[in-house]
Amino acid sequence: MSESAWGGRFQEELAEAAARFSASVDVDKRLAPIDIEGSLAHVRMLGRCGVLPASDVERIEQGLQALAARVEAGDFSWDAKHEDVHMNLEVALTAEIGESGAKLHTARSRNDQVATDMRLWTKRACQGIRRSIDALIATLVARGIEELDVLMPGYTHLQRAQPVRLTHHLLAWCEMLERDAGRLRDAEARMDECPLGAGALATTTFAIDRKQSAAALGFARPTRNSLDTVADRDFLVEALSALSLCAVHLSRIAEELVLWSTQEFSFVTMSDAFATGSSMMPQKKNPDMAELIRGKCGRVVGDLVALLITLKGLPLSYNRDLQEDKAPVFQSFDTLSDCLEVMRGMVESLHFRADRMQAALREGFVNATEIADYLAAKGVPFRHAHHVSGRLVALALSRAQTLEELSLDDYKGEDAHFEADIFEAIRAEVAVERRDVEGGPAKARVLHALGESLDRLATRGYDTSALRSAWKARH
Amino acid sequence: MSESAWGGRFQEELAEAAARFSASVDVDKRLAPIDIEGSLAHVRMLGRCGVLPASDVERIEQGLQALAARVEAGDFSWDAKHEDVHMNLEVALTAEIGESGAKLHTARSRNDQVATDMRLWTKRACQGIRRSIDALIATLVARGIEELDVLMPGYTHLQRAQPVRLTHHLLAWCEMLERDAGRLRDAEARMDECPLGAGALATTTFAIDRKQSAAALGFARPTRNSLDTVADRDFLVEALSALSLCAVHLSRIAEELVLWSTQEFSFVTMSDAFATGSSMMPQKKNPDMAELIRGKCGRVVGDLVALLITLKGLPLSYNRDLQEDKAPVFQSFDTLSDCLEVMRGMVESLHFRADRMQAALREGFVNATEIADYLAAKGVPFRHAHHVSGRLVALALSRAQTLEELSLDDYKGEDAHFEADIFEAIRAEVAVERRDVEGGPAKARVLHALGESLDRLATRGYDTSALRSAWKARH
Amino acid sequence: MSESAWGGRFQEELAEAAARFSASVDVDKRLAPIDIEGSLAHVRMLGRCGVLPASDVERIEQGLQALAARVEAGDFSWDAKHEDVHMNLEVALTAEIGESGAKLHTARSRNDQVATDMRLWTKRACQGIRRSIDALIATLVARGIEELDVLMPGYTHLQRAQPVRLTHHLLAWCEMLERDAGRLRDAEARMDECPLGAGALATTTFAIDRKQSAAALGFARPTRNSLDTVADRDFLVEALSALSLCAVHLSRIAEELVLWSTQEFSFVTMSDAFATGSSMMPQKKNPDMAELIRGKCGRVVGDLVALLITLKGLPLSYNRDLQEDKAPVFQSFDTLSDCLEVMRGMVESLHFRADRMQAALREGFVNATEIADYLAAKGVPFRHAHHVSGRLVALALSRAQTLEELSLDDYKGEDAHFEADIFEAIRAEVAVERRDVEGGPAKARVLHALGESLDRLATRGYDTSALRSAWKARH
Amino acid sequence: MSESAWGGRFQEELAEAAARFSASVDVDKRLAPIDIEGSLAHVRMLGRCGVLPASDVERIEQGLQALAARVEAGDFSWDAKHEDVHMNLEVALTAEIGESGAKLHTARSRNDQVATDMRLWTKRACQGIRRSIDALIATLVARGIEELDVLMPGYTHLQRAQPVRLTHHLLAWCEMLERDAGRLRDAEARMDECPLGAGALATTTFAIDRKQSAAALGFARPTRNSLDTVADRDFLVEALSALSLCAVHLSRIAEELVLWSTQEFSFVTMSDAFATGSSMMPQKKNPDMAELIRGKCGRVVGDLVALLITLKGLPLSYNRDLQEDKAPVFQSFDTLSDCLEVMRGMVESLHFRADRMQAALREGFVNATEIADYLAAKGVPFRHAHHVSGRLVALALSRAQTLEELSLDDYKGEDAHFEADIFEAIRAEVAVERRDVEGGPAKARVLHALGESLDRLATRGYDTSALRSAWKARH
Repeated sequence: MSESAWGGRFQEELAEAAARFSASVDVDKRLAPIDIEGSLAHVRMLGRCGVLPASDVERIEQGLQALAARVEAGDFSWDAKHEDVHMNLEVALTAEIGESGAKLHTARSRNDQVATDMRLWTKRACQGIRRSIDALIATLVARGIEELDVLMPGYTHLQRAQPVRLTHHLLAWCEMLERDAGRLRDAEARMDECPLGAGALATTTFAIDRKQSAAALGFARPTRNSLDTVADRDFLVEALSALSLCAVHLSRIAEELVLWSTQEFSFVTMSDAFATGSSMMPQKKNPDMAELIRGKCGRVVGDLVALLITLKGLPLSYNRDLQEDKAPVFQSFDTLSDCLEVMRGMVESLHFRADRMQAALREGFVNATEIADYLAAKGVPFRHAHHVSGRLVALALSRAQTLEELSLDDYKGEDAHFEADIFEAIRAEVAVERRDVEGGPAKARVLHALGESLDRLATRGYDTSALRSAWKARH
Repeated sequence: MSESAWGGRFQEELAEAAARFSASVDVDKRLAPIDIEGSLAHVRMLGRCGVLPASDVERIEQGLQALAARVEAGDFSWDAKHEDVHMNLEVALTAEIGESGAKLHTARSRNDQVATDMRLWTKRACQGIRRSIDALIATLVARGIEELDVLMPGYTHLQRAQPVRLTHHLLAWCEMLERDAGRLRDAEARMDECPLGAGALATTTFAIDRKQSAAALGFARPTRNSLDTVADRDFLVEALSALSLCAVHLSRIAEELVLWSTQEFSFVTMSDAFATGSSMMPQKKNPDMAELIRGKCGRVVGDLVALLITLKGLPLSYNRDLQEDKAPVFQSFDTLSDCLEVMRGMVESLHFRADRMQAALREGFVNATEIADYLAAKGVPFRHAHHVSGRLVALALSRAQTLEELSLDDYKGEDAHFEADIFEAIRAEVAVERRDVEGGPAKARVLHALGESLDRLATRGYDTSALRSAWKARH
Repeated sequence: MSESAWGGRFQEELAEAAARFSASVDVDKRLAPIDIEGSLAHVRMLGRCGVLPASDVERIEQGLQALAARVEAGDFSWDAKHEDVHMNLEVALTAEIGESGAKLHTARSRNDQVATDMRLWTKRACQGIRRSIDALIATLVARGIEELDVLMPGYTHLQRAQPVRLTHHLLAWCEMLERDAGRLRDAEARMDECPLGAGALATTTFAIDRKQSAAALGFARPTRNSLDTVADRDFLVEALSALSLCAVHLSRIAEELVLWSTQEFSFVTMSDAFATGSSMMPQKKNPDMAELIRGKCGRVVGDLVALLITLKGLPLSYNRDLQEDKAPVFQSFDTLSDCLEVMRGMVESLHFRADRMQAALREGFVNATEIADYLAAKGVPFRHAHHVSGRLVALALSRAQTLEELSLDDYKGEDAHFEADIFEAIRAEVAVERRDVEGGPAKARVLHALGESLDRLATRGYDTSALRSAWKARH
Repeated sequence: MSESAWGGRFQEELAEAAARFSASVDVDKRLAPIDIEGSLAHVRMLGRCGVLPASDVERIEQGLQALAARVEAGDFSWDAKHEDVHMNLEVALTAEIGESGAKLHTARSRNDQVATDMRLWTKRACQGIRRSIDALIATLVARGIEELDVLMPGYTHLQRAQPVRLTHHLLAWCEMLERDAGRLRDAEARMDECPLGAGALATTTFAIDRKQSAAALGFARPTRNSLDTVADRDFLVEALSALSLCAVHLSRIAEELVLWSTQEFSFVTMSDAFATGSSMMPQKKNPDMAELIRGKCGRVVGDLVALLITLKGLPLSYNRDLQEDKAPVFQSFDTLSDCLEVMRGMVESLHFRADRMQAALREGFVNATEIADYLAAKGVPFRHAHHVSGRLVALALSRAQTLEELSLDDYKGEDAHFEADIFEAIRAEVAVERRDVEGGPAKARVLHALGESLDRLATRGYDTSALRSAWKARH
C-alpha cells in the first residue's frame, strides 16, 4: 500500500495486519495478462481521443508489452505491499518507463478497471467451460453410438421401472449438459459490456470514447450506467448459478456411476485409469473420481452462496466487499473445469456391462406396464388394467417367478382379455421398440436424438465428422 | 392414498403418519387450474390420435370443465387422503363422469403430468414477475424524469465520492432490474418445452403426438428426452437463480432507502403510507417496508439453496425428493412478487430531499477529483495531481473548511498550475456536466438513458405514452 | 396497523399493500399461547414491583386467561389489520377489559416481547425434537437387539469393504443422532435467558425486576445486555444449525434405505405401510418416505441459509428484517419433526433380509483384508501383505471365483506364509469376531454399545425397561 | 498414486488427469505435523500392545521425528504423485528407515488417520479462534472503560430511538462474541474423541488399545462406533456453523463501523492505519477493513453450505467425497482468524467522536419515550401517553424544533399532566441514568457488565490485570 496510490490526505502507514488482510495480489495476479490487455485498449483509446499525446501512448504500450512478456515468462515478482494486480503492474510500469507510466491511470479508476478484468476473464472462462461441456457431450454421443443396442432398466425411485436403451440414458445426460451450455451462452451475452470509462463511479471529465475501448476488447458495447457498472457483479452470480447447476448435474451423473459400479449393480466397470484402491483393503476398486466430482458440487454451490451473501444489502456503488468476488469465482471455474475433464475421461474409458443390464431387465418386473398397456389397448380402463398387472406381479413375487414365467392361465385368471400374444408384448426388446414416441427410447428415436446432438455440436464449431460417420453406420 | 392408484401388489394400508407426510395437496392444490388445462390438452390429443374414442374424450372434457368451475368457485373440497392435486382431481372426475374418468390417465404418468404443471405455472409466474419489474422500472423512470435536476453525492465505500444526478442513481437501479428481466426471459425460453408424453420415464406405447399437446398448451416444442424430462427441475433452479439475484438487487435498493431515511442522511422521507411507528417510542418513523424487503432476500436465496441441495446427487430419473420443489418455488415467487409491488409503491410515494443532498454535496469534498483532473488536464501526471488534491483536502479538513473556501493562494501553495478558474471547475453543477460520457451523469446522457429505458419498456408492450410525454418535456 | 400502536406523529394510513406485506399474524399466531404466558409473567412482575396497582394486574390476568381460553378453543379471530399476534391480543384484551388493557404494555416493547416469545417457543421446540430423536434411537436399539446376529458387508466408497454386524451399522446411525441431541441441548442452555425488560433496546425507566419475569417463565436468568437482546437471533441460527445437521443425517440414513430397497441390494423390504406404488407401473414399490426425508434436507438447510443471509450486515439493534425469522424457524422444526416421526415408523416396520446380506458377504471379497492381516500377523510388512491379497483378488476375479474357492496352492503360489488355517481366517463370522476392539463390530462390543445407548436414553428420562430386558436376554 | 498403496488388483496406471484431480497434498500438507503426531501415538501404542516389536517402534519413531524436523524446516518436498499428506509421509518414512516404515500402517487405515488429523487440527483451530475472540473482547472492554461517559443514540430500524451509553453498545458486541466462544467450546467438547483404531470402517483384527492412542493425543476418549467414525464430519459442520455465526456477527459490527464512519454519521474516525484511500478520488478515506470483514462473511457461510451439500445424501461409511472437507474448513478458519485480528486492531485504534454522538442525541427526538413514560408514571395509560408524545414530536417537527425547545404550554396543550419537571426528565443524561435495570445503560449497570466481562475473560485464563485496574478507577 504505497503512498503513491492515495497518499495526500493520509499521515500514517497502513497497519501491517491491515495491509496483509486487504492485499489481494495472491488471488488476483492471474488477471495480469487481461489487466494488461485492458490497459492497452485504454491507453490507445486515450491516444486516439487526444487525451494523451502519442509519445506517452507509445511509451506506455511498449512498457505494458514488456510487462506482459515478464508475466508470461514467470519473471514478474508480485509484491503484496502493492496490494493488488493493478497496482503491482502500475508500479512496475512506472519503474520501467518513468513518469509516463503514471499517466496510464488518466480517466480510469481501479473500480472500472477491475470490473473490466473480471468481465473479460469470466466471459472467456465461460467459453472454456462450454468447450469442456461440448467435449463431454461428444464423448457421450460416441459411447451412445457404440452402445446403441444395449437395453437396461430405466429407474424411478431407484426401482426398476421400464426398459430403455442405455443410449437413451446417456442422451438424458447430454440434455442436462446442453442446458448448462445454453445458460452459459446467455450469461456471456449479458456480460458482454465494457465497464471501462465508468471511472470510480461517475465516468470522467476527460473526453473519452467508451465505444472504442469496448470494441478493442471484443465487447459488444459499453455498459449503460456508470454507478451500476462499478457496483454490479451480476455477471459473476449468473455465471456461478450456471456452474452450480452444471455441478449438480455432474453430481447426479456421478451418483449413477457410483451406483452402477457397486457390486450390486455392476452395470459398469471403471477403467483402472479412473479408479483407485484402498490402503487397507486389497480387494477394493473405488469410484473415487465419481465421488470427488459428486463431492465438489458442494464447493461450487457454496461459492455461489458466498457471492450472493457478499452482495446482499450492499449500497451502491463500489464497496470493498466486492473484492471478495474473485476467490469463489476462480475456485468454481477451476473446480468445474477439472470435473468436466475427469468426467469425460471416465465416461470414455467406462466398460458398460450389457450382460448385467440384461439380467436386471429380466428380474425387475419392468414389463408390468406392458401388461397394463396391453389391457388398456383392449379397452380396459387404465386404472383397472394397472390393478390387474399389480396382482400378477404379486402372484409372481409370491412364487419367486418372473412375469415371463407365469402361465397363460395365470394371466387369464386375472383378466379374460389376455391372449398368448401377451408373452411377446412383455419382451423387453418389444417393449422398448413400442415406445416409438418423440423423445422416447425406440431405436429410431434414439438415433434421431443422437443426430440432433451432433447437429448442435456442429453448430457450435465442434468437429463431429468422425462421430457423424459412426452414427451413419448405425442406420 | 387410495387403492385405485397403485393397489394391485400392496396388501397393507399406508400408515397414517406416512400418508400425512407424503401428501402434498395443501401445497400443490394451487396447480389445479393448470392441471386441468394440461389434462384437457392431453385428452384432446388422445382423441385426435385415436387412442381414445370421441365419446370418452367429450365426456372427460365436460367433466374437467365442471371441475374447473368448482375449483374456480372455491367449491372443490381437497382431501389429503388423495395425496396430491392430480389424484384429487382424477378421483373427482371419476366420481363426476364414471368409468371414462379412469381413461384420462392413458399414456400419461404423474411424472410427466406434474412436470408439465410446474413448467406451465413457472413460465407464467416468470412473466408475472417481469410485469412487476416493468412496473417498478416505469416508476423509477417517472421519478427520474421528475427529479432530473437534483444533484447528490455518489458514494463509494459509503463515503461521498463524486457528484452525480439523483436520476443517474435511479437509473442504476433500473439497469439492475433490466438484467433481472432478461434472465427471466432466457429462463422462460429454455423451459418452453412440453413434458407431456414422457410418461413415467420412457414415453408410452400408445401412438400419441407430443407436438399436439405441446402446441395446445402454448409450449414451443416437446421435451427431447423422456428420462431427462421427468428427472429435470433445471427450469425451477434457473428461475430461482434469477429471482435470487433480483432479491439481492432489491436488498441493495432497500439498504439505500433505509440509509437515506436515517436522520443522518435524510435524503428521503418515506410516505406515511409506507412507514410504520413504534409501540414504545412515539417519535419513530421506521422504514419497515424497506427492511422487510431487505430481509426477505434471505428467504428467496434460501429457497434456491434448498432446491439445489434437494437435487444434489439424485440419480435419474424421477425420485420422490422432487416433490420438495413446490414449496420453495411458490414461496419465492410469492415473496418476490410482493416485494416488487411494495417497492414500487414505496418509490412512487418517496419524497426526495434535494436540499439535504445539496448540503451533502457541499460538505463532502466530492469535488476533490475535479482538482486532480484540473491538474491532469494541464499535463500534471495523474498520480501527482491526485496527491496534490489529497493535500488540499487535508488542509481544508485541518481548518474545517470546504475546498471552495480555500484561497487561490492555498491552491497555488500546493501547485503552481492552479488559476482562478479552479473555483468554477469544482462547482458540483459543472463537475456533473463535465462528465459527459456515455453512461455518465451529465444531463444529456441521463436524458438519453431515460429514453432508452422507455424504449425497452415499450418493446415489451408496456404503455409508456405518458412517461414519454413527460420525458420530452424535459428536453 | 391501527392508530393506537404508534399514531401520534402519522397523518396518513398505511397503504393496503404495505399493511398486507408487513402483517405477520398468519405466521406468528401460533405464538399466541406463549405470548399470553409471557404477558402474564410480565404483568405479575409489574404488580409485585409496584409499577401497576393490584387491581389492574388482576383485571389483566383475567383478561389474558379469557383470551388464552378463546385461542385454545379456536375461537379467536385473527385480523391482519392488527399486524401481528402481539397487537391482535392486545387489541382483544382492551376490548375485553377496557382501559386497563392498555397498561399491559408498560415497561415493555414488542422488541423484547417477540424475543421472549421466540426463545420460549424455540426452547420447547428443541426439547420436542430431542424427544423425537430419543424415540428414533430407541427404535434403532430395539431393531439392533433383534437383529444382533445378522452380518452384512460394511461399505466404503459404496463398495463392499469388510464384514460387520447389521446392528453395528444401526448403532452408527444412533451415534449421529446422539450428537444431534447434544447440540440441541447446548443450544437450549445458551438460549435460556429471558429478554423481558430489555424494552425497545434500552430497558425501561420503570423499576422492574427482570429476574422475576425470567424465573416465572422458567428461564435460567435475564439476558445481559438490552441492545444485544433485541438484536440477537443467535439462538435461532444455532437451533437451525443443529436441525440442519440432523436433517443431513436423516438424508444419509434415507439414502441407505433407498439403496437397500433397490432390487439390486434387496437388503430391506419396506412395509407396505411406508411405501407407495406408481400410477403407471403396477410392479413398483417405491421407498417414497425415505426419498421425501432425503429431499426435505434441502428445505431445512435452506432455512438456515435464509436466516444467516437475513442477519448478515444488519446494524444493531432491532431491525424489521428480523421479522423474517419466524417462517424458516417454524418450517424447519415442523419439517424435521415429521421426518423423525416417519423415519421411526419406517425403521420400526422394516424387514431386514439377512439372506441377501449374507449372499453379499460371500461375493464381495470383503475378507481380502483378513488375508493381508493374516500375513501381517506372520511378520510380513503390511504394504506387501496388502499387495499379495490384491493379487489373490485379481486371480479370483479372473476365474469368477470367491476367495474361499481358491485352493491352498493358489495362496501359497503368492506367498509361502499361507497355511490351511487361512480358510478359517477368512470366514465372515470369524472376521467380525476378531474385530474385538472398542467401537468395533464383534458381538460383545456391539452388545456393550447397545447397553450404553440404553444408559444414555435412561439418563434423559426415556423409559428403557422393555428394551433393557430384551438386551439382557441376548447375553 | 504409487503402486504401493493398493496395487495388487490393478493393471493400469491412474490417468494423469485423474491423479491430478484426486491429489490433495496441496491442501492437506498443512496437516503434516499433526499427521506425524498421530503416527507417533499410533506406533507407540502398537509397541505397548505388542503388535509391533520395540525395535520397529523405535526405528519408526526416529524416522517420524526426522520427518517432523524436515517439515518444520521447510525441507520436505511434497509430491502430488503420492496423492496426499499421509502417503507422502509414509513414502518418505520408508525411504528414511527402510522396511520398518511399511509397518507403521498396521492396524490403521487412511480413513481413521485422516479423521484423527482433522479432529486434532480443528480442535486446536477452535482454541485459536477463541483466543482471538478473547483478545477482541478485551479490546472492546478496554475501549468501553475509556469511553464510559460517552452517550449516543441507540437505534432501532436505523432510526434514533433512545439514548444509551456508547460502552453499552460496545458491550452488546461483547455478548455476541461471548456466545461465539461458547459455541466453539461446546463443539470442541463434542469433537474430543479419537478416531484412531476405527480402521477403514470396522476397527482391526490386531489387539490394539484405543484408549492409549486417545490419551496420547489429548483426546478425552475414543470414538464409539467405527463405521460412524470414518463417515462422520459433524465436528467440521459444527465448527463451521459456529464460525459462520461469528462471521455474521463481525459483518454486523463492520456494518456499524462503516455507517459510523460516513460523513453523515461521523461517530468514528478510522485510524489511517486501518483505512485506505482511492486511486482516483484524493479526498477519500475508506473503511476498507470493515468492508472486507463484512464481505468475507459470505465466504465463511459459503463454506458451511459447501460442506453440508457435500455430506447430504452420502451413504455410510467413508466416501471419497469427504476429501472435500479440507478446503472449506481451512479457508474458513484462516478467514475468520484474520477478520478477528483486523477487527481488534481497528477497534483499538478507532477514534470515537463524542461530540457528534452528542449532537445526534439532541436532534433525534430520542427522548420522546421519556415523555410517554413521564405521563405513564402519572397514571396515563401507556398507549395514550405514547400518542401524546407522538403529537408533541409532530408539533416539534412542524416547527423544526427539538422537544427541549417546546414550551411548557406546548406540553400542557397536549396533556394537563405535564409540569415543569418534564424538561429535566427529557435530558439524555437523566434518561440514561433512569434506565437503571439489569442489562441496561445506566452507568452502574454498565460498570457491572464490564466487570462481568472481565470475570469471564479471567476464567478463561486471559490476563485482565491492567483492565481490572482501569475498571476500578472508574468507580
